[in-house]
Amino acid sequence: MNDVCRYIDDHGKESVEELFDLVRMPSVSARRQAIQETAEHLAEKLQDLGFETRIMPKRGTGQPVLYAEAPGDSERTILVYNHYDVQPDEPLDEWETEPFEPTRRDGRIYGRGICDDKGNVMARIAALRAIKETRGSLPSRIKFLIEGDEEIGSPFFEEFVDDNRDLLKADACLWEGSGVDPEGRPLLPLGVKGLLYVELSCRTVARDVHSSYATVVPNPAWRLTWALSTMKDEDENILIDGFYDDVRDTTDAEADAIDRMPAEEEAFAKSLELERFVLGVKGKDFRKRLYLAPSCNIDGLTAGYQGPGSKTISPGRASAKLDFRLVPDQDPHDIERKLRRHLEKHGFEDIQVETFGAEHPARTSLDKEWVAIVRDTLSSVYGKETVVVPTMAGTGPMYPVVKMLGVPTADTGVGYIDSRIHAPNENIREEDFMMGIKAAAAVFDAFGRWKG
Amino acid sequence: MNDVCRYIDDHGKESVEELFDLVRMPSVSARRQAIQETAEHLAEKLQDLGFETRIMPKRGTGQPVLYAEAPGDSERTILVYNHYDVQPDEPLDEWETEPFEPTRRDGRIYGRGICDDKGNVMARIAALRAIKETRGSLPSRIKFLIEGDEEIGSPFFEEFVDDNRDLLKADACLWEGSGVDPEGRPLLPLGVKGLLYVELSCRTVARDVHSSYATVVPNPAWRLTWALSTMKDEDENILIDGFYDDVRDTTDAEADAIDRMPAEEEAFAKSLELERFVLGVKGKDFRKRLYLAPSCNIDGLTAGYQGPGSKTISPGRASAKLDFRLVPDQDPHDIERKLRRHLEKHGFEDIQVETFGAEHPARTSLDKEWVAIVRDTLSSVYGKETVVVPTMAGTGPMYPVVKMLGVPTADTGVGYIDSRIHAPNENIREEDFMMGIKAAAAVFDAFGRWKG
Repeated sequence: MNDVCRYIDDHGKESVEELFDLVRMPSVSARRQAIQETAEHLAEKLQDLGFETRIMPKRGTGQPVLYAEAPGDSERTILVYNHYDVQPDEPLDEWETEPFEPTRRDGRIYGRGICDDKGNVMARIAALRAIKETRGSLPSRIKFLIEGDEEIGSPFFEEFVDDNRDLLKADACLWEGSGVDPEGRPLLPLGVKGLLYVELSCRTVARDVHSSYATVVPNPAWRLTWALSTMKDEDENILIDGFYDDVRDTTDAEADAIDRMPAEEEAFAKSLELERFVLGVKGKDFRKRLYLAPSCNIDGLTAGYQGPGSKTISPGRASAKLDFRLVPDQDPHDIERKLRRHLEKHGFEDIQVETFGAEHPARTSLDKEWVAIVRDTLSSVYGKETVVVPTMAGTGPMYPVVKMLGVPTADTGVGYIDSRIHAPNENIREEDFMMGIKAAAAVFDAFGRWKG
Repeated sequence: MNDVCRYIDDHGKESVEELFDLVRMPSVSARRQAIQETAEHLAEKLQDLGFETRIMPKRGTGQPVLYAEAPGDSERTILVYNHYDVQPDEPLDEWETEPFEPTRRDGRIYGRGICDDKGNVMARIAALRAIKETRGSLPSRIKFLIEGDEEIGSPFFEEFVDDNRDLLKADACLWEGSGVDPEGRPLLPLGVKGLLYVELSCRTVARDVHSSYATVVPNPAWRLTWALSTMKDEDENILIDGFYDDVRDTTDAEADAIDRMPAEEEAFAKSLELERFVLGVKGKDFRKRLYLAPSCNIDGLTAGYQGPGSKTISPGRASAKLDFRLVPDQDPHDIERKLRRHLEKHGFEDIQVETFGAEHPARTSLDKEWVAIVRDTLSSVYGKETVVVPTMAGTGPMYPVVKMLGVPTADTGVGYIDSRIHAPNENIREEDFMMGIKAAAAVFDAFGRWKG
């Protein structure tokens, strides 16, 4: 791999420029912004590497998937999952530089989506270019599946995979992108949490009312407050009947892996200017909650007057955006039904539930051979022990790949603890990006040599 | 008064145009917008009637008061309280016409502040013009006190009155403006509720965080939800320790007046498209809650992502705007202390309290002679029995006048049940405006003849 690594080092500047071009495209899926042109831009990049590309529609409201395929030395196939869409850039006033104008500062490069997920897709493309330019061919058959609406919960992705089972057939999968831990050790996550994203809303009256009527006119912000307070208590117990029923017991191998993961909470707390995590958790307990516990989170609250100073009204409408992170074997559709039953049972029939996203949790078992191959490859590239992570805290549409296609899935990437994904000032370190390209090249190479 | 009424009828068009000119001035006190020019505009109007005017600063952050005084036939003095500022115009998309471009439609005239309080101040000016043009003089000494920040809780008004006790000395006061009930009977309110307006806010971390960390990072929207739910229960009981301690018992005269007030809740419910008021109250119980009960209202909620679709974050900050309407003898400063103690006692030291406004409740006793004079005058002008209202549901800075100056205070005006004050599409009926001018003229005239 020395020749490939030299090529990567010699072309670092172009790789970063190529990443910047992609980050400049404001592909916010929540606003359906710049979707088609971003897919086409990436398709051209892959065509240059000899891939055949197709921009494929999803069913329903789904945004187009970029599919690309190229043959290689091994007839075995690796499926590469990424996404070209990004989170919204709000709150704008907390960005130090423009979200869609990538900027270099102190060894870091900033921009919306530069870590999640554009840095990862560009690292993989740069890796394959280095291999192809150096050796003349790719190590194996490679299939890229690059989604356009991962950040809004990958609607209709299950249906897409179901509709294209033959096309997507593969022997292993490389997932969208992880990173390194605070010690610089490569992280190898093997699973994702599921997600249920809903908006609860309540309209009590046709319009805002002068607050002198607050004694008699029902206030939807109070209704919402009371409803939410029945759903989770101050000790973080989620109170929806049956919420925890399908949570699978942790295996010994998972518990052992969690135990061996490095402490990460101090650096993270520092970056958040936070003194104490929820319930005061630290060390193993922090990691157990972070990786293995399901959650019920308020993403946003909206009601009435939010401007400067005071305005005395009882609002007509109030709403809350909520997400539930789910762990195996919780089913988002089942949790949605339980949530509706909960609201009904507590007398909140006036609260409407609208579902914006539902994804199943998924994990690749720690005993798969593919896991060992990626683990050893990463340890060798980074010169440090790989940290195997039984599941990420985050969500991705891994379930259709792991469960429906039956493909073992592992994850490597360009992020680090302070990458601020989904938040203002999202960034990666330039050195992590370069290492990410080399790691991707080594993993593609190892897959090509795997006879499994 | 026939000559005066004829003059009023003959000059109706000019009076409405003059009101429109005032409504076009966007004097939103919460934004300190168009304050000085609106005060000057009104000062010119009063100078034309022979008033000496002064635009007087308040202490601290207070916005200027327009004071105007003119002598008349009687040496006794009536104080007229109004305000020239208005509520913010948001939510803009619910207005059918521009808030600051007054519009006629089906006998109604629309615009922000057209009822609260610009229609009332212009009705009084039109009334005095009619008297002066018809008779050559005003009926008594008249002092106008027109505030510029009533809609943000009249900051420093108590201090202003205290600093100007001699200047403001009077024998009776005409308050800012009431209206007619659904049967067209004139309403005569004699008191106001107090107000405490606060913003509760919580910042747990320095920035928004990806919601996959929701299991470990404290969420300020949950903290706020839990804190609010300790403050009022679903049966509308306010749970702050000692909140009800100083609520004075209702007198027999007040209870009798409330009993005799007309049912108003059906028309109001219809205008709100509402089926059931809080706790299902109707009739006398509705009026008892509306006029005599204190409240704890959520005016607004803000946290995290509020745009379209989904964004998966745990927000860094959450806030709620709240107002408490208070009844005699609750003290807003005492309630603020009790609120802070409540939050502390329930473990919510992480919730900040910022106070935006504090006003005392006040009532003029039903047995004052001035009450009888205004009541009888209104009955005669409207040809219908006057409805005496022991207190309004709303708030105004009546306490310094009633308590500090010791002046009996009564209220007449141009509004009606669907005037939508503080809400989109604020409006008055043109006929109510004309009747309001005549009623104001008759009240000024009756005051001039009162020997009391």
